[in-house]
Amino acid sequence: MIMVMSPGVTEKEIEEVEKQLKGFGWSVHRSRGEKSFILRVSGEYGDDVGTAIRSIPYIDKVINVSHPFELASRAYQPEKTVFEVGGVEIGGRKVVVIAGPCAVEGRGSYLLTAEAVKRGGADVLRGGAYKPRSSPYSFQGLQEEGLKILAEARSMTGLPVVTEVLDRRSVEIVAAYADILQVGSRNMQNFVLLKELGQVGKPVLIKRGLSATIEEWLMAAEYILSEGNEKVILCERGIRTFETYTRNTLDLSAVPIARELSHLPVFVDPSHGTGRWRCVSPMCMAAIAAGADGLLVEVHSSPKEALCDGPQSLLPGKFSQMMDSLKKVAEIIGRNL
Amino acid sequence: MIMVMSPGVTEKEIEEVEKQLKGFGWSVHRSRGEKSFILRVSGEYGDDVGTAIRSIPYIDKVINVSHPFELASRAYQPEKTVFEVGGVEIGGRKVVVIAGPCAVEGRGSYLLTAEAVKRGGADVLRGGAYKPRSSPYSFQGLQEEGLKILAEARSMTGLPVVTEVLDRRSVEIVAAYADILQVGSRNMQNFVLLKELGQVGKPVLIKRGLSATIEEWLMAAEYILSEGNEKVILCERGIRTFETYTRNTLDLSAVPIARELSHLPVFVDPSHGTGRWRCVSPMCMAAIAAGADGLLVEVHSSPKEALCDGPQSLLPGKFSQMMDSLKKVAEIIGRNL
Amino acid sequence: MIMVMSPGVTEKEIEEVEKQLKGFGWSVHRSRGEKSFILRVSGEYGDDVGTAIRSIPYIDKVINVSHPFELASRAYQPEKTVFEVGGVEIGGRKVVVIAGPCAVEGRGSYLLTAEAVKRGGADVLRGGAYKPRSSPYSFQGLQEEGLKILAEARSMTGLPVVTEVLDRRSVEIVAAYADILQVGSRNMQNFVLLKELGQVGKPVLIKRGLSATIEEWLMAAEYILSEGNEKVILCERGIRTFETYTRNTLDLSAVPIARELSHLPVFVDPSHGTGRWRCVSPMCMAAIAAGADGLLVEVHSSPKEALCDGPQSLLPGKFSQMMDSLKKVAEIIGRNL
Amino acid sequence: MIMVMSPGVTEKEIEEVEKQLKGFGWSVHRSRGEKSFILRVSGEYGDDVGTAIRSIPYIDKVINVSHPFELASRAYQPEKTVFEVGGVEIGGRKVVVIAGPCAVEGRGSYLLTAEAVKRGGADVLRGGAYKPRSSPYSFQGLQEEGLKILAEARSMTGLPVVTEVLDRRSVEIVAAYADILQVGSRNMQNFVLLKELGQVGKPVLIKRGLSATIEEWLMAAEYILSEGNEKVILCERGIRTFETYTRNTLDLSAVPIARELSHLPVFVDPSHGTGRWRCVSPMCMAAIAAGADGLLVEVHSSPKEALCDGPQSLLPGKFSQMMDSLKKVAEIIGRNL
Repeated sequence: MIMVMSPGVTEKEIEEVEKQLKGFGWSVHRSRGEKSFILRVSGEYGDDVGTAIRSIPYIDKVINVSHPFELASRAYQPEKTVFEVGGVEIGGRKVVVIAGPCAVEGRGSYLLTAEAVKRGGADVLRGGAYKPRSSPYSFQGLQEEGLKILAEARSMTGLPVVTEVLDRRSVEIVAAYADILQVGSRNMQNFVLLKELGQVGKPVLIKRGLSATIEEWLMAAEYILSEGNEKVILCERGIRTFETYTRNTLDLSAVPIARELSHLPVFVDPSHGTGRWRCVSPMCMAAIAAGADGLLVEVHSSPKEALCDGPQSLLPGKFSQMMDSLKKVAEIIGRNL
Repeated sequence: MIMVMSPGVTEKEIEEVEKQLKGFGWSVHRSRGEKSFILRVSGEYGDDVGTAIRSIPYIDKVINVSHPFELASRAYQPEKTVFEVGGVEIGGRKVVVIAGPCAVEGRGSYLLTAEAVKRGGADVLRGGAYKPRSSPYSFQGLQEEGLKILAEARSMTGLPVVTEVLDRRSVEIVAAYADILQVGSRNMQNFVLLKELGQVGKPVLIKRGLSATIEEWLMAAEYILSEGNEKVILCERGIRTFETYTRNTLDLSAVPIARELSHLPVFVDPSHGTGRWRCVSPMCMAAIAAGADGLLVEVHSSPKEALCDGPQSLLPGKFSQMMDSLKKVAEIIGRNL
Repeated sequence: MIMVMSPGVTEKEIEEVEKQLKGFGWSVHRSRGEKSFILRVSGEYGDDVGTAIRSIPYIDKVINVSHPFELASRAYQPEKTVFEVGGVEIGGRKVVVIAGPCAVEGRGSYLLTAEAVKRGGADVLRGGAYKPRSSPYSFQGLQEEGLKILAEARSMTGLPVVTEVLDRRSVEIVAAYADILQVGSRNMQNFVLLKELGQVGKPVLIKRGLSATIEEWLMAAEYILSEGNEKVILCERGIRTFETYTRNTLDLSAVPIARELSHLPVFVDPSHGTGRWRCVSPMCMAAIAAGADGLLVEVHSSPKEALCDGPQSLLPGKFSQMMDSLKKVAEIIGRNL
Repeated sequence: MIMVMSPGVTEKEIEEVEKQLKGFGWSVHRSRGEKSFILRVSGEYGDDVGTAIRSIPYIDKVINVSHPFELASRAYQPEKTVFEVGGVEIGGRKVVVIAGPCAVEGRGSYLLTAEAVKRGGADVLRGGAYKPRSSPYSFQGLQEEGLKILAEARSMTGLPVVTEVLDRRSVEIVAAYADILQVGSRNMQNFVLLKELGQVGKPVLIKRGLSATIEEWLMAAEYILSEGNEKVILCERGIRTFETYTRNTLDLSAVPIARELSHLPVFVDPSHGTGRWRCVSPMCMAAIAAGADGLLVEVHSSPKEALCDGPQSLLPGKFSQMMDSLKKVAEIIGRNL
């Protein structure tokens, strides 16, 4: 931790600060530059100690120079994390494609879509049974009924399924049905939930929060890792910016950076990340070209029942077509799909 | 809901879209302008239907023209919500000041601070027993021991206490000790927790999320209201922007806007909102001048034990001084403190 | 400048980096911490040297620890800058109110408004003659004709006038008519314009850019100061964030911070900062309570001609009323208005 | 334009608003929904009329439903803009690569780099002669001397050159030397400069502003087009967000969107967009996969003289390697490079 002293600080003031810092059991090292005076501090401290110390009047800035995550870092584990779920290798040479509708809306339509995305080449099925909705009056998902439909789709297709878990209490039931548990972006810093998931024997896919920095995203993964669960997948899904044309701004540069900082597999969700179906295919291509280990794609199949259907959504036909192009991009960068 | 059709859309395409929309039981009304063609749609739909419909190719934009919240709106209840907690009237003529340290770090120091802020004129005590920390390795709060200290401080000072609740499971125990339950900004869209708090017979103070719009913040309140709990306090505490000099950007314009849109009391937390103690006093003054119904302020008292202490933080002395100035601002706008 | 080395960097790599840095004539000082290794670098370097150096593979982060501005800093000049323009003292005890319509739309209406805001207690008149418009098809201002109307309003009221200058070429003509030259937020980093304004013998009011940090804003002022013009006014006018309910997010915490970092007078423009007339009055109150040295307020007077008129805008009547309240807030903090 | 009336608006109030709107020569059409009442307004109005009207008390929101740009739109010109500069076709089947150092720092080093990027397969040379710097004390570029070096590099390599123009006054001299004139992100809304460039007979590459929406970026292009210059290139270079790990957040979804909304060629600058050399290559791959018509890449060649040199930057060797991979991605999407 580096503390930049205020301009014009006196020797007496520096000593006063040093004394306090040492009082916490920290070691302090001085460094005088041409235009500024800094203290370098080492010792045990939490992540928001900076805020507390910022209130010391003679300190102008507090800068953390070391990354706060450990188990998630490449320094801790240089080689990539690779694990297998339901016959699918995650984090390996193969780019993994997770596909399906946003929510499980009904048995018939879901099974149709599941069958279709399997034919299209998907590796894992997705579908929400518990839906986090910003309005209390909106459809909150089919809940356990949805989980049963997911399990049926898995039996039918042989593909593992991923679905969202909303809180600590439902972890057990979701874990009983799903192969991968998803943490939604709104829950990325629900630390109680993260700890619970650290004790589950199933992989966890953790979406980046709407306004989470890459470091905070890796710290969320660290919560899960620190409880003993090593099967964590990071998923970039767009951040909140001033741009309103897209629902979020998909931050693809987070892919090479997260892969450099961490050994965990990094996925991308262009459907939620852009909110525009015309962007999905180009951004899937781009995500793989940028090095993503996997994709989450929304696909709908049953024109008669679903809300976003017919020629207008990513239909299985378009999905298959896209998969052909994605395969070629994967090959160029030495991977397969 | 208004749907703006793509430029150059044909009559046939419009009909196709209309047919689909009507298929959901919605009524559709056409409107052709000089440069654009819009459809106005009425009916029952959830909050993210827009996303689904955005995928229809002939639709360019989907705009919600009505606010999504109802119980929280001034249209539903024109007069301000006023309620009483531990002898303190919230939402009334008096500007309510909640003060205390960020976390309960120990019995002695907490009781000292509590006594001091009471003398300074605070109405409610604050202090975290369960701390949401971005690192799993940081101090997570004294938990139930902290709650007991809070209860002791209440007995001693006669002031009600507010403390954060992190998840559904701990609602019961926190509600057993605290007078007001706080939802932190990271949990603003933890809908499971919000619903649980809607069934508790105690007031809830809900902090605005780091990247939550004012509408989303009011929707979070709506979750609590819709479960039957009418005692909700909104608290602005800074949003995440590109500016790094302050920890967050305190959005004071949210005060007049939330007060216009909603009947709920609106508080401001300048300590977390700026992360700089030198900003706290000016922003407390500004918050009251802008019409805030209350303040949350961090105050520390025990120089020997606490991390941020001595002359360097908002000490009780400075707090008392500030209270004098705040009183005068409150009077100017026809309130008291 | 501090350079944080990549985790696991070797002695040989550090030496390689040091050699390069010394090659630029810089002095380098090593510091090894528990979890990280840093280099402290001193010497002459520009503001974006960081970017260049970030490309050295063994360097993880480059952090500037000293503020990049000098003439604008409190270290350079501890006492506040105070100057006089047209009989009005800027930066002194008095909070200065600049009022008038956004644009000069016609002689009659402008003179009416000018007369009215004078009666209301304004100190300086505002009005745009050259308008920066995001569409080339929008009204671009009355230009020189507008400047002449401003000059007439000054003669009539005795109040000095401020108006925007769009580019280097028009500096001369605007300076011939106006008392204060305004740099709009879109031009805050138009460095060619800033340099030109540094050579003009008139005060310059510089609005903070839509996405400018406080440091960049002060650097823009530094451009003007460095050319010899010491009469610079900083004006906060809202930054761009994800919130769309207000046109911008007015960052009032920038007031105490800019006043702490710099000796220059700090003004606030709540009209552009919020884009909602109902917010103007509360945010004017808040700005003064936060310590602003002045305000920019939009006021319209002629219901028959102007676009935003009648009872619906900040009419002279409301403006006068507001001024009464503002006076009281100013007095509380030891100022007058 | 759609105006959403405030909840509870009365018939009398609606009539009052209608009367005012009609007073501006606009036609007004009413539409009553279940939860809201809207007015649809048609007529001639500028881009910020919304702000003015937002001040009418009975109006809650003003929404523009038509895009403000015309000449830049696909509706105006469905087929893509393709033009030729110095033998290079821009906007056609070929993905165009512009490469070179950020600034022209000296004759020898620039010529070396120019030669090297040519060998690597670049189509156009880049290099700044006039540099916009946030500090007045930083190196401001070699100016005309730099332009002469660029011209010499063109003679030597046969490649056209692009360089930045900072203000209206220097347009003439830059246009005398360069083949393509670049508008930097800080100048994207320097409307005086844009108009001037609309009258120049040379192509203009316009970078997206740090906090510009896609619509504002296209409006900036509209300024140039509206003056008669049809050769405009759009260039995405990262937007400013809360994330600090990258210098900016490269918004690659802007590529498919700008290509859908407009016929103009869309380029991407991953070097400035990320500020990290390790991201450049993955993001170049991603940009082409997303459909970009061209790239701007920073490449340095002369280890002895340049600031960012040796093995640590995108050296010609790495550049050539990357070009091989880019070629393969281009081919997959039916283009060449």
